[in-house]
Amino acid sequence: MLALTVDPALALVERNIPERGPGEALIRLRLAGICNTDLEIVRGYMGFRGILGHEALGEVVECDEAAWMGKRVVCEINLACGDCPSCQAGLNRHCPTRTVLGILGKDGCFAEYMTAPLDNLLEVPAEIDDESAVLTEPLAAAFEILEQVSVRAGQRVAVLGDGKLGLLSVLVLLGVSAEVHVVGKHQAKMAIVQSRGARVHRHDEELEGNFDVVVEATGSADGLARAISLTRPRGTVVLKSTFHGATPVAMAPLVINELTLVGSRCGLFPPALSAQSAQRIDPRPLIHARYPLHEGLAAFEEAGRSGVLKVLLDMRS
Amino acid sequence: MLALTVDPALALVERNIPERGPGEALIRLRLAGICNTDLEIVRGYMGFRGILGHEALGEVVECDEAAWMGKRVVCEINLACGDCPSCQAGLNRHCPTRTVLGILGKDGCFAEYMTAPLDNLLEVPAEIDDESAVLTEPLAAAFEILEQVSVRAGQRVAVLGDGKLGLLSVLVLLGVSAEVHVVGKHQAKMAIVQSRGARVHRHDEELEGNFDVVVEATGSADGLARAISLTRPRGTVVLKSTFHGATPVAMAPLVINELTLVGSRCGLFPPALSAQSAQRIDPRPLIHARYPLHEGLAAFEEAGRSGVLKVLLDMRS
Repeated sequence: MLALTVDPALALVERNIPERGPGEALIRLRLAGICNTDLEIVRGYMGFRGILGHEALGEVVECDEAAWMGKRVVCEINLACGDCPSCQAGLNRHCPTRTVLGILGKDGCFAEYMTAPLDNLLEVPAEIDDESAVLTEPLAAAFEILEQVSVRAGQRVAVLGDGKLGLLSVLVLLGVSAEVHVVGKHQAKMAIVQSRGARVHRHDEELEGNFDVVVEATGSADGLARAISLTRPRGTVVLKSTFHGATPVAMAPLVINELTLVGSRCGLFPPALSAQSAQRIDPRPLIHARYPLHEGLAAFEEAGRSGVLKVLLDMRS
Repeated sequence: MLALTVDPALALVERNIPERGPGEALIRLRLAGICNTDLEIVRGYMGFRGILGHEALGEVVECDEAAWMGKRVVCEINLACGDCPSCQAGLNRHCPTRTVLGILGKDGCFAEYMTAPLDNLLEVPAEIDDESAVLTEPLAAAFEILEQVSVRAGQRVAVLGDGKLGLLSVLVLLGVSAEVHVVGKHQAKMAIVQSRGARVHRHDEELEGNFDVVVEATGSADGLARAISLTRPRGTVVLKSTFHGATPVAMAPLVINELTLVGSRCGLFPPALSAQSAQRIDPRPLIHARYPLHEGLAAFEEAGRSGVLKVLLDMRS
């Protein structure tokens, strides 16, 4: 089968169809999404080697439970042990011995087939089309904000960054009827959320500051200091960006204003699926382009361009 | 009167007894404590000019309300407007137009007399002696941890730093029957809390890690990264240290492990007074030395030495 691998350079290669481990399904992939984390991994993040990709939509073609055969599925990306205290507490995303699809110790979904534990699969309801369903993983990461932080209707929230995660965070936060401001560089991208009720800004200076909650999703090193400066005393900063290495941050304002800084990563899939199923959130306007897998290198080049939102890989064409 | 001022060097000077503003009391000081923040201010922190000092015990000698006359009092250090949204929400410590005793725009307590709003004064119950009472402000800063973070009995807590605030934090956290570990440099200082049930360590490597809560009270720039590495996924880091300038911190582990980082500063005085009143906490073992005010420069030199805990200034001798 065709696969996009990191070894350590990104390459399109021919691989054997993988063999299922115990409890695993073989999944024939339909669509996959390219995430900024994938771009970071190609630059060396996580030291990953293997088939890249963790935003997957496919169908089960082999497994030990007949009920799953042929199902259209998405796949939670953390493959946990199921037995440790983290797993027992429902936090299998934090299992210390986990592998992570296409990120850590497990081949991912930029290929014609992949394997994954049945425990990680969720069937996609029929009313969610393929293009929405493949965005379940990043939408779940945005919903993670609401799993970690209570955001109340009417609170003032700022989202820094108009990338994919920033815009999905805006859509999720609009869902709780917060007053959501977004600061980004690209008017066209911000227009996607402006039409849903977000207030859009090109510069921090246009904001009044003193926000109850600020979501840092810029992906750049200076974003955290900006977020800290925009948050009211006792307010909350949600840190979504991960960077290589150490970021110099003036921490005194965080202490003086007694801010809470919450690191936020992957989310649970069910809230994301139910929001799509009920048409409360439609992530499809974020799709910028779709490439067949055999043009995967061009897809990556496109995904890395400034201003580009979600690029999909299509395994069926 | 005699006073210790920063202008910008620390100096012992003769000043007029201050005049009360509206709503203020004139307080004759008995004792005052030297805090690390005072040492930082002498090095330039906050750009403060005037009479230093914010840990005060004295008695009211002039005011407009007869009931306060002669009372032995401590003084909450944030002088707030009382009208803004922060003040109305009970967070006058975060009033944007506040002045702060001996720190920001208001003369402090390293003098024979000071003025302060009656609203900021708390009468000290008779059962608390002067030496305990003067430590109410730093003890309140330690109690602030429990105002911001729910620490449950039996949870594993690490306190990094065996300075004054570190040790007071340990005493407060032992009060909720947490399993409290402290990492410091000075066996003699840590012995103060070891006798109350804390487990003491000279190196992070002696700790098992994976703590529910880690309190960063080292006062040094590398403390935050150490705290992050010792905290379990979804655990909490309480940041007590303030430093000048930017601290380089690797933030990716905070995001990946979804930690919560809570900046923590001044606390409310009533919990600290009631803990002392009921003899649940006795902060007096932290007192290292007492100097008369006229030896204030020597007191500062002593307070700045490694391993030295609380140095008091005595205005009556």
